[in-house]
Amino acid sequence: MRVLGIDPGSTVTGFGVVERAGAGVTHLAHGTLRPRKGAPLATRLGTLLEGLSEVIEAHAPEVVVIERVFVSANPRSALVLGQARGVAMASAASRGVPVVEYAPSQIKQAVVGTGAATKHQVQAMVKTLLALPKAPAQDAADALAAAICHAHAGRLSALLEGEAPGRRGGRGRQGGRGYVVRRVR
Amino acid sequence: MRVLGIDPGSTVTGFGVVERAGAGVTHLAHGTLRPRKGAPLATRLGTLLEGLSEVIEAHAPEVVVIERVFVSANPRSALVLGQARGVAMASAASRGVPVVEYAPSQIKQAVVGTGAATKHQVQAMVKTLLALPKAPAQDAADALAAAICHAHAGRLSALLEGEAPGRRGGRGRQGGRGYVVRRVR
Repeated sequence: MRVLGIDPGSTVTGFGVVERAGAGVTHLAHGTLRPRKGAPLATRLGTLLEGLSEVIEAHAPEVVVIERVFVSANPRSALVLGQARGVAMASAASRGVPVVEYAPSQIKQAVVGTGAATKHQVQAMVKTLLALPKAPAQDAADALAAAICHAHAGRLSALLEGEAPGRRGGRGRQGGRGYVVRRVR
Repeated sequence: MRVLGIDPGSTVTGFGVVERAGAGVTHLAHGTLRPRKGAPLATRLGTLLEGLSEVIEAHAPEVVVIERVFVSANPRSALVLGQARGVAMASAASRGVPVVEYAPSQIKQAVVGTGAATKHQVQAMVKTLLALPKAPAQDAADALAAAICHAHAGRLSALLEGEAPGRRGGRGRQGGRGYVVRRVR
């Protein structure tokens, strides 16, 4: 199962692609899209749409994961976030890729083990879990964390269906390229 | 000059296409896009993206007009509106069509003659100005009004450049298929 996480934002949008095979979750790609700052809003949103469409075509994810939004007290920032978020969701759905949402606390819980984790903890654990040479930029780390959260949820379903890692040649214990779910709980 | 007005919304998005030739503004098309109500948010936004992309390809507007948003006190509705609005802007910009915004009061002023016009007045005046057999649905009427506002602004520029309707065979007085700007002021 290949999962694309997207962390949409008005100035920076992070993305991250992971793949779950049995008990392991491996890193495929991550990055950030930064439409030109001085450009008009519509141009930036158009650039975002094109960039995400390219990412989706390049990596052919089976599912896109976006963090659920708990609206703040500020309607202006909610509008701005909504605009980028709408583009991200539409870019996936218009290509037939389903979009799932997780609460921020669920994503932190899956990656750090506590729903109250800091941004820095998420970055550090994403680096560790995916065995990356260095921590990804914050927006990309958040996107990877969302993708890991879903891959993890899918892996639990697989476990329930009897695909326990112990019966599959110990894939659950592989180091370096994946992570062991026990560490994540 | 061909102008596409879009009135984005979470459940209904109106669109309207008008053309300015000299002093006249003629109606080309209008309608509403209504993604299936029970569908997931991302699916609805994807449907909206596809629908607007089809409208843009079918009518090849030179410019897209969207009403500027004055954010209300409700962050939740700002987020929801932002999502549809982001998709509308990106659908135009990703096809290289510039997007312009007008304040709601500017649009009402251009169509009804007062920035404090009601929705019903806008509907009625859009019907009259474009000589339509019946008033368009409210969202389509708002989209047509936005398009007329921009076409009107462009016509004023044309006037300032010496293209006065009186010197062009009285196009400004044509009935039925266009409107005379004097009535709009």
